[in-house]
Amino acid sequence: MKLGRFFSGDRIFYGIVEEEGVYEVNNPFTRPEPMGNPYRVDRVKALAPCQPGKAVCVGLNYRSHAREMELELPGEPILFIKPPSAVIGPGDIIEYPAMSARVDYEAELAIVIGSRCKNVQVEEASRYVLGVTCANDVTARDLQGRDGQWTRAKSFDTFLPLGPYIITGLDPDRMDIKLYLNGELKQESNTADLIFKTGELVSFISRVMTLEPGDVILTGTPSGIGPMERGDCVDVVIDLVGKLSNLVR
Amino acid sequence: MKLGRFFSGDRIFYGIVEEEGVYEVNNPFTRPEPMGNPYRVDRVKALAPCQPGKAVCVGLNYRSHAREMELELPGEPILFIKPPSAVIGPGDIIEYPAMSARVDYEAELAIVIGSRCKNVQVEEASRYVLGVTCANDVTARDLQGRDGQWTRAKSFDTFLPLGPYIITGLDPDRMDIKLYLNGELKQESNTADLIFKTGELVSFISRVMTLEPGDVILTGTPSGIGPMERGDCVDVVIDLVGKLSNLVR
Repeated sequence: MKLGRFFSGDRIFYGIVEEEGVYEVNNPFTRPEPMGNPYRVDRVKALAPCQPGKAVCVGLNYRSHAREMELELPGEPILFIKPPSAVIGPGDIIEYPAMSARVDYEAELAIVIGSRCKNVQVEEASRYVLGVTCANDVTARDLQGRDGQWTRAKSFDTFLPLGPYIITGLDPDRMDIKLYLNGELKQESNTADLIFKTGELVSFISRVMTLEPGDVILTGTPSGIGPMERGDCVDVVIDLVGKLSNLVR
Repeated sequence: MKLGRFFSGDRIFYGIVEEEGVYEVNNPFTRPEPMGNPYRVDRVKALAPCQPGKAVCVGLNYRSHAREMELELPGEPILFIKPPSAVIGPGDIIEYPAMSARVDYEAELAIVIGSRCKNVQVEEASRYVLGVTCANDVTARDLQGRDGQWTRAKSFDTFLPLGPYIITGLDPDRMDIKLYLNGELKQESNTADLIFKTGELVSFISRVMTLEPGDVILTGTPSGIGPMERGDCVDVVIDLVGKLSNLVR
């Protein structure tokens, strides 16, 4: 199933995307039932497919990226949080902040939580996951180094593009992920290269904090990170999920 | 004015606290108008006085604490974020997490944002502030050191006690702040010792991320930090604001 959030010109709603159009649903986190006639896809704007109360992110979770940074593999996931104010949707603009002179892309698979959970076992984690979507963990690399703490560098408005849709029923640990900058392939990996698998991440994070419907977990970025300039177009492409495309201004 | 959030046994509401009781208000962030008859204070439970979409915190912002940690004064505020799931109210229990063997108190003055703002000038910052309240930036000190990033150590459920009330109209840069552990004075300072004043913090953070009504900014902790044990009672006391009291379990 393909779930999204949409703007029709006068209202915002959750919907299921089908061949013939977008059917509104009441609540995407329980059993979403299509209502009424579909909207034509070209008559609605896709927004970020959920509104996370928190976006919990994991640093250094691809073996290839750890090698690239010449860092040891971590024994436990290293967490940071991006605020709700950073979220934008597909097609929205990434604003280059005045405070930074080096803004990087980071393609990531995002897990979308479907129901409240805490202290989840690894084997049970998938029960609490609604689906997956594409994310770009935009990072002011200069500030990340200067601060030591990553929060400021990762938290600027527009620094968390999400979308276009949440796809349910896939295996998140076997997904091809790619990033294109102005059409040029920059990152290419598969989530099979994750150090901590998605079930381990949900379990670990849920032992720290209660996860709520719509919260997202960003699972880390593979090797090939690099800078973006104003005017660039950046695409995160995940097989079977879709393409998340944003311009930098 | 003294603003709070309350539970009456069957519903949750915002209210103004007066001599004669608690008057319900529609919206604490605009001009709160008392409605109807007051509730008796002993018939309602005070909750955390707001529900922050984000709690943005500042590391190392008292000169005395910087000396205690033998660290240089930072040139810019170092930010981190605590998630909404960490918030508890006055009288609620701080849960000692299984993952940690060293959990510390940190008394802090919290600024509560009153209206949406971005790119605020220092001189204008107070316009966007609703008031102040007491906070305890509970920290798993062992995990803070092990992770390097502070997020996990600061983000456990119950690690952000807030309250009891939001007090409007005070000067946040001249407030006595104290912390008592089981009645013994452990931290004692005045926000005049802040490296970055509250107006500078609102301005700086608003140049990173849009602040929303109910968001809180934790302004850092003075010297005297230390561990808590299960069974301890911890009180943050800020002059003219009140006492935030919590038990550790």
